[in-house]
Formats: sequence, structure tokens, C-alpha cells
Amino acid sequence: MAEKMISNNKQVILKNYVNGPPKESDMSLKTSTINLKIPDGCNDAVLVKNLYLSCDPYMLGRMKKIEGHYTDAFAIGSPMVGYGVSRVLESSHPNYKKGDLIWGFTGWEEYTLVTDPSTSFKIHDKDVPLSYYTGLLGLLSQKGETVFISAASGAVGQLVGQFAKLMGCYVVGSAGSKDKVDLLKNKFGFDDAFNYKEERNYNAALKRYFPYGIDIYFENVGGKMLEAVLNNMRVHGRIAVCGMISQYNLEHPEGVHNLSALISKRIRMEGFLVLDYYHLYPKFLEMVMPHIKKGKITYVEDMADGLESAPAALVGLFSGRNVGKQVVVVAKE
Amino acid sequence: MAEKMISNNKQVILKNYVNGPPKESDMSLKTSTINLKIPDGCNDAVLVKNLYLSCDPYMLGRMKKIEGHYTDAFAIGSPMVGYGVSRVLESSHPNYKKGDLIWGFTGWEEYTLVTDPSTSFKIHDKDVPLSYYTGLLGLLSQKGETVFISAASGAVGQLVGQFAKLMGCYVVGSAGSKDKVDLLKNKFGFDDAFNYKEERNYNAALKRYFPYGIDIYFENVGGKMLEAVLNNMRVHGRIAVCGMISQYNLEHPEGVHNLSALISKRIRMEGFLVLDYYHLYPKFLEMVMPHIKKGKITYVEDMADGLESAPAALVGLFSGRNVGKQVVVVAKE
Repeated sequence: MAEKMISNNKQVILKNYVNGPPKESDMSLKTSTINLKIPDGCNDAVLVKNLYLSCDPYMLGRMKKIEGHYTDAFAIGSPMVGYGVSRVLESSHPNYKKGDLIWGFTGWEEYTLVTDPSTSFKIHDKDVPLSYYTGLLGLLSQKGETVFISAASGAVGQLVGQFAKLMGCYVVGSAGSKDKVDLLKNKFGFDDAFNYKEERNYNAALKRYFPYGIDIYFENVGGKMLEAVLNNMRVHGRIAVCGMISQYNLEHPEGVHNLSALISKRIRMEGFLVLDYYHLYPKFLEMVMPHIKKGKITYVEDMADGLESAPAALVGLFSGRNVGKQVVVVAKE
Repeated sequence: MAEKMISNNKQVILKNYVNGPPKESDMSLKTSTINLKIPDGCNDAVLVKNLYLSCDPYMLGRMKKIEGHYTDAFAIGSPMVGYGVSRVLESSHPNYKKGDLIWGFTGWEEYTLVTDPSTSFKIHDKDVPLSYYTGLLGLLSQKGETVFISAASGAVGQLVGQFAKLMGCYVVGSAGSKDKVDLLKNKFGFDDAFNYKEERNYNAALKRYFPYGIDIYFENVGGKMLEAVLNNMRVHGRIAVCGMISQYNLEHPEGVHNLSALISKRIRMEGFLVLDYYHLYPKFLEMVMPHIKKGKITYVEDMADGLESAPAALVGLFSGRNVGKQVVVVAKE
């Protein structure tokens, strides 16, 4: 029989399924207890201490009861689940041992028993901030082309823009405040950027920055911006659909009225989920690590301190309150 | 100096740019004269007698004054231009000689001087009806998957469905009348078909025919049908966007409100124009000819007799009056 080592375990719980925009009050904090030992017979599991949690827009989908969503809804009364960086306290899985750092799905709590760590990755390279592992995902590769990125100062956008710059593209981003626009132009090295909240006419704004049209659109917002982009795409353009954050909270999502541009301009528009590209992660690290170490990639994180701040941090994503990738610091080791 | 051989030349003229749906009165018939000799110094040209003209929905775009359309608008007062099958009467182009049959862009008139026949193709195989060359374009290749085709009895849909069947797919089509549905099921060998005008809820209709979802959607109509299809697509589904005929005549095209399905289902949606695939035409013929000769491909044409009937035939496309590919017979040799 396994020995017992009971510890308190602070948790962020989903209180009820979200209706409309998420509110902090949809979540609550709870302190339960956990045995910091892997139960007998629980093979291939790891017991982890959580260090960093990632706040991602897709999580809203799991906080709602949506038929046919690509992942299951969270269970009411249980801790929420998301990407995080954790330290292994104990392991019954052959790939992991005590002390390993891993990233992957974990609970929004101090300690989690991860019963299926097969989608987690061991962190080998510790010369970069650990929190980066909650966000350094997403990849784009083209050269000599014009690239537009919406929500460009966010977790994904800032990286996509820098990768595109490294590959020799002309890169413009949109964001929702002057500070974020400054960040894009001065810190991330975008060729240009604009505050979409100050533009009455997205069409005109895009024409200003892309007089000859857009080759690649990295879509994070959807709705009216997508319409304007379709009007400004070039022939054989590509749209990588990463997210449509402007639409997630609308009871009736806005319609996109000019999809026939897909035909006349022979545009490819494709949605993707990181789930499908895990196998490429080692390749991605190989590509990105040298750039990070040479200081060629800047990465801005918005650190919320403590599990207590997790609900507000998650809710803030949807009003654009975060600057850069929103992370929750659960423990600093 | 070239000799003269003056002939009458009946023409279908664009009278004014179209506003809203096309009307027969937007076009007019005119008889002018033409010298049936290639003018001196006009190299690389062919003078043709037109046999069959193709009526295609895309032509509406050239009958309107739309900024940024992928092809130029037709000139007011000039004959309309479209795909057709023609016989070469005289040639100053090294690739063509008198008597050759060709298909490609030609005028909506009895005789045309084609000054750039570089996008035309010589017809070598005359064992199939010549008119087929106005319509046997468009190609899809997948196997063991579920395929939905809208406007399925039309020029393109009927072929796409049969190709998909040849490749072992489960194929369902929608069309706008009982007769067309019968054609799909009994003549084209679709697995099933439905009359969209009799369905109050496209979503429910698609769920009935695709309880496990749609792998491939061949999009010809757009609007509400596209929305319903997005709801019923499977993960990693593909949408080939050939046309959106339900939208071309709307002053305000309908919005598509559920594009975030592209993300959750990782759908690829791509528009195309046949212009980009001319180089594959010989390969296509190689593939399709044996099937046609063995009677494995059925092809239904709706023949309008005489240039006089051309305007009505073209207008009829937009109310779905045609059954099968709409062709205008200008001359039977």
C-alpha cells in the first residue's frame, strides 16, 4: 500500500457552464487536499507540481456546453484544465522521472495527478524561461510575401510576426491599444501596426498598409476584420485560421458576406489546431531555440500572480486586457 | 493584300452593364459583317466558325462593372465572350490549320477572329460529342469518403459526382427540382439526392444523408447551404469552392456565421478557377476519355438552339431553369 503524504491543493473550479462572455464568477477557488503519492496500480501516470498555466481563448469552448465541440466540456465542480509547465514529483511512467520538467495538459491547481502524460513533452532545454513552454507554439513559413496578423500582440500573433520577419516577409499587425501597437513596431520588429479600435474602416486601413494586397493572413479574430481582409487578399493568398476571438462571445456570430472572394482570388483558408502538429514539436524547437538564444525572438508575457488571479486573467483575454501571452504563475519552483 | 470574303455575322451583344440579376434585355442580337480572311500582318491568329457556346455562371461577373473582378468586364456594344467549340476556317498560327476543331475562348457570334489562341486547345478525339468540350472541365480526386455536391445536376456538379463515384466515394447531391433529383439518382448514379427547395432545414437534411458527417463538399451555391454544410463537416474535411451561385444576384450577399467551424474541425476551404489548371488538361483527357467511351460517364446537356436563344439560356442559369450543362448550338457544322 502506498504511503500517504497529504497536502492542501488550491484549485480553480468551474462553477457553472458559461453563458455569453465568461465572468470571473463562473469560476471559484477551492482548497481541497491531495495525496502526493501516485495511487497503487495507477501505471503510466505522473504526479506534478504546477508552475505555470497558460490562459488561452480556446478554453472558453470547454467552459460552455456546446454540442460537437472538438474537446469535451469541463466538468462542473472540477478544476479547469489547460496547458501548463509542471515539475514531476513522482512518476509511474517509464518516460518521466522525479524532477523532470514537462509541459502539456494539467489542472488549474497546485498539484495534479496526470494519468495520461502521453501528450506531454519533457523540457530538455532550460536556458529559456520555463513559462515560454506554455506559449511557444504555432508556426508559419513563407518568404518574400506580405503578411497581416490580427490580435498581433497576443500569445500567438507576436511569434508568428517575428517568424515571418525572420523569413523575410513584410509584416503588419493589428491590436487594440496604442501600447500594443508600440510593442509590435518597436519590440517585435513588425514593419507596421495599427490600432483597430481607431479605424472606422478596416478596408481602408488594410489598403493603406497593403496597397498591393495581402499574401498571407494569420487569422485570430474573425468577423468584420476577416471581411475586410478578404477584400484585400491577393490572388492565391492563404489564410491560416488560428482563432476568431471576436466571435466567441457573441450570441449570434457576425456573418462573413464576401466568401466568393475565395473563388475569384483562389484563396486557401484553413483552420488548424495544435493537437494535430505535436509530432512536429521537436522540429519546431530545433528551429526556434537558436533564435531565442541569440535574442532574435522577443517574447512578451503577461504574468498573473497566483492561482487566485487565474479567473480574472482568463476573463481578461476576451476584452484584450492582456499584453502578450497571458500566463498564471502558480509556483516559482 | 488579303482577298475579301465578306459574310454576315450574327452576334450577341452586351447592351448595358447588368445591375442585379441578369435580364435578357441586357443583351441584344445584332447582325454585322465580317471578312472571313485573316487580316494582313495578323500573325498567330485563327479565324473560326463557332459551333457550340457554353453558358456559365461566372460570365455574370463580366457583365457587371465590378472593381477588382478577376477578369475584365465585357465591352458594351461588343459581342460577349465565353468558352466554345469552333472550327478553324483559316489560321496564321503554327499550331492550328484549316479544318481543326478547337475549344477555348471565343465570341458569342457566328464567326470570330481569335487573335490569341494560346489558351485554346485542339480537339483530337472526335469520338465524343463536340459540345462536351464546353463542359468537361473540373476534377476531384479522393476515395472512400463522403462527398456532398450542391447544384449537383449542373454542368460541373454532375461530373464531379460521377468522378467521385468512380473513385469509390459515397456521393449525395442537392438540386432544385424533382426531375433533377431523379436525374442524379437514376442517371448519374449518385448514392442519394434531395431537392433543397423541399427542405425547411438544410442542417437536418444533411444530417439525414450524412449521419457521420461530410468529408468533402463541392461548393456551387454558397449562403445558407454553406452554413449547414459547415455544421455537418467532419474533422479534416475539405471544401472545394467552385461557385456560389445563390449569392451572385443578391445586392447584399448572405453572411456565413459559423466559420469558426474551420478551426475546430481543421477544415480546408479553397477556391479555384479553371484558368489555373489548363496545364493539367491533357492529363484530364487521358483520365476521362476511356470512361466516356466505355459509357461510364453520363453527361446531360441542355441545348439551346441558335444564337437567338443565347440570352435566355444564360439568364435561365440563375433561376435553375437548365437541366444539366447549358450549351448554345450556334451551328452544327
